[in-house]
Amino acid sequence: MTLRVMGVDPGLTRCGLAVVDIEPNRRSTLVAVGVVGTPADQLLDRRLLVISDAVDEWLDTHAPDVLAVERVFSQLNVSTVMGTAQASGVVMVAAARRGIPVALHTPTEVKAAVTGNGQSDKVAVTKMVTKILRLEMAPKPADAADALALAITHAWRQGVAANRTSASGGTATAAQRIWAEAEAKARRRR
Amino acid sequence: MTLRVMGVDPGLTRCGLAVVDIEPNRRSTLVAVGVVGTPADQLLDRRLLVISDAVDEWLDTHAPDVLAVERVFSQLNVSTVMGTAQASGVVMVAAARRGIPVALHTPTEVKAAVTGNGQSDKVAVTKMVTKILRLEMAPKPADAADALALAITHAWRQGVAANRTSASGGTATAAQRIWAEAEAKARRRR
Repeated sequence: MTLRVMGVDPGLTRCGLAVVDIEPNRRSTLVAVGVVGTPADQLLDRRLLVISDAVDEWLDTHAPDVLAVERVFSQLNVSTVMGTAQASGVVMVAAARRGIPVALHTPTEVKAAVTGNGQSDKVAVTKMVTKILRLEMAPKPADAADALALAITHAWRQGVAANRTSASGGTATAAQRIWAEAEAKARRRR
Repeated sequence: MTLRVMGVDPGLTRCGLAVVDIEPNRRSTLVAVGVVGTPADQLLDRRLLVISDAVDEWLDTHAPDVLAVERVFSQLNVSTVMGTAQASGVVMVAAARRGIPVALHTPTEVKAAVTGNGQSDKVAVTKMVTKILRLEMAPKPADAADALALAITHAWRQGVAANRTSASGGTATAAQRIWAEAEAKARRRR
């Protein structure tokens, strides 16, 4: 069964939104990608409402099976982290209201999943996302690529979890294999 | 005209909610006060939904003129600040969706407004809130008292702003006078 995942890279200025269909063999197809955002001089509650309305519309239009959101850490950039956390709260509650499960993934998990290296830069992530989704052009801006990467990460991690108890391996790309090995190594370290 | 203010002290475990009617002479009357919260072992998106649903219900039931929310700072307790920020985002967007203006006040502003001292502790704030609202018992828990204090603070700060251009002084309590003087002093310093 194809899994439809919506990925959201939360932010007040630019919030990346993406929907990807992922088949059991991990083949991933772009459904929609975009960015919603508001200028910094607008009132905070109005900025959050623009994001909330956009996420509501995307959830209703694309009816994803699951919402994958980037996990926000307070250790990151202090000047923007509060707005990012507020935006992520608004995004999560929109899914919860529809009974759509929410999964959180860290930036390191996303980078490791799509490039095989948790320390990759944005350029490498965008390049791999473009390749995985067989796109003719790289998705822009970076927030859109990050939302796509989140959606792919969620499905692949689920897939890897499923494969642990499954004999059928499916067809994995080089990056998927690298990541599965890295994840297996990390599991052994625990 | 009486101003109806809803105050919210955001939090995942305990979110204080309060509605207060404040007359032009600053006489403040309790309309409703309560706390909504969720256990820490619940899923984050479900916790946010409980808060969102409660705030929706309070806004529809009490139809406040304005929502006053505590401003969250990333410098505070790192372990809880992200959840508090996410909750505050959910609360703000509920008001924005209804066209209800949102005002943010810092804890220091709230303490200064109700006790005349920006460094007051929770006991002093609760004591003054009980007195201002002519309650027979102190509101509990502290989150409920904080939400009441936020609502009062918002109206009084608005009132003081209005009084700057008004000849009629109204009837102020000792705390209100102390605060108005402190605020005037702060203004002169700028």
